[in-house]
Amino acid sequence: MGEMLDLIKKRRSIRRYTDEPVSDEAIRTMLEAAMAAPSADNLQPWEFVVVRDAGLRRQLAQTHPWSRMCAGAPVVFVVCGHESRSSHWVEDTSAATENLLLAAAGLDLGAVWVGVYPDRGAEAHVRKVLGIPEGLRVLCLVPVGHPAESKPPRTQYDPRKVHYDGY
Amino acid sequence: MGEMLDLIKKRRSIRRYTDEPVSDEAIRTMLEAAMAAPSADNLQPWEFVVVRDAGLRRQLAQTHPWSRMCAGAPVVFVVCGHESRSSHWVEDTSAATENLLLAAAGLDLGAVWVGVYPDRGAEAHVRKVLGIPEGLRVLCLVPVGHPAESKPPRTQYDPRKVHYDGY
Repeated sequence: MGEMLDLIKKRRSIRRYTDEPVSDEAIRTMLEAAMAAPSADNLQPWEFVVVRDAGLRRQLAQTHPWSRMCAGAPVVFVVCGHESRSSHWVEDTSAATENLLLAAAGLDLGAVWVGVYPDRGAEAHVRKVLGIPEGLRVLCLVPVGHPAESKPPRTQYDPRKVHYDGY
Repeated sequence: MGEMLDLIKKRRSIRRYTDEPVSDEAIRTMLEAAMAAPSADNLQPWEFVVVRDAGLRRQLAQTHPWSRMCAGAPVVFVVCGHESRSSHWVEDTSAATENLLLAAAGLDLGAVWVGVYPDRGAEAHVRKVLGIPEGLRVLCLVPVGHPAESKPPRTQYDPRKVHYDGY
């Protein structure tokens, strides 16, 4: 088990990447991890757009001021959810995103969760760039690459946030 | 890395538990994992209520028809989020919940995500049972115990849910 907690602590938000491509095998592994997430009633209301095209990544980098690193990452995952299929699409796609980030860390890749939801303007931009239809919501962008920065493992465990048998 | 994907696939929704207690050390490990999750602007808008009292667990079991296993689990984690502190509290607490579930699987414990949000009636019940103040939202309940059922590892990878360079 030690490994599991170690890997969870190893996952940090990495925003700088080398030019080395991310392999098809690694992309497949990250998608398998994402789709191993739980979902309410097992509805699996997610869809994933894998963006490697440099022009598209440059456009995704302009989604908002915190999405710039999409231009420099060899691949950007765009995590989407079918709002009409599940009232739990945000939680389900968030669990899938966390699995994707953990799989990236396990592969010694760097990644970061770039939030889009619930910013409707940012979402409209991503939708236009990638041709995502109305009704399919955009949760986040996840740029991934070989890391050009490193951060130490950590938890931010805070005993003040733990309550026993009542708040 | 193999380990990471294996552990992610090993996490299944386990709803039946033995009477064996869950150790304080295991509870701490699961909370460390939860609080190692990423959060928007690192605001960590989460709080966790750890419920071991049998009477309280029986009341949580009555939250809705899918929460009954709370009565039989030695411990139930209640994952909450400060809505006023972050517009991303649902995503952040969902990532924390997924980490908690993965840590449970890594410890050979069984657990399941019992959704509460966005059901306001269910949330009001949990709030009343545990004295959770208005403004602190309830994302989910996570009953955890030593498993009395087993399920094989799996991903639900579906290539139809993967799109390249556009939807």
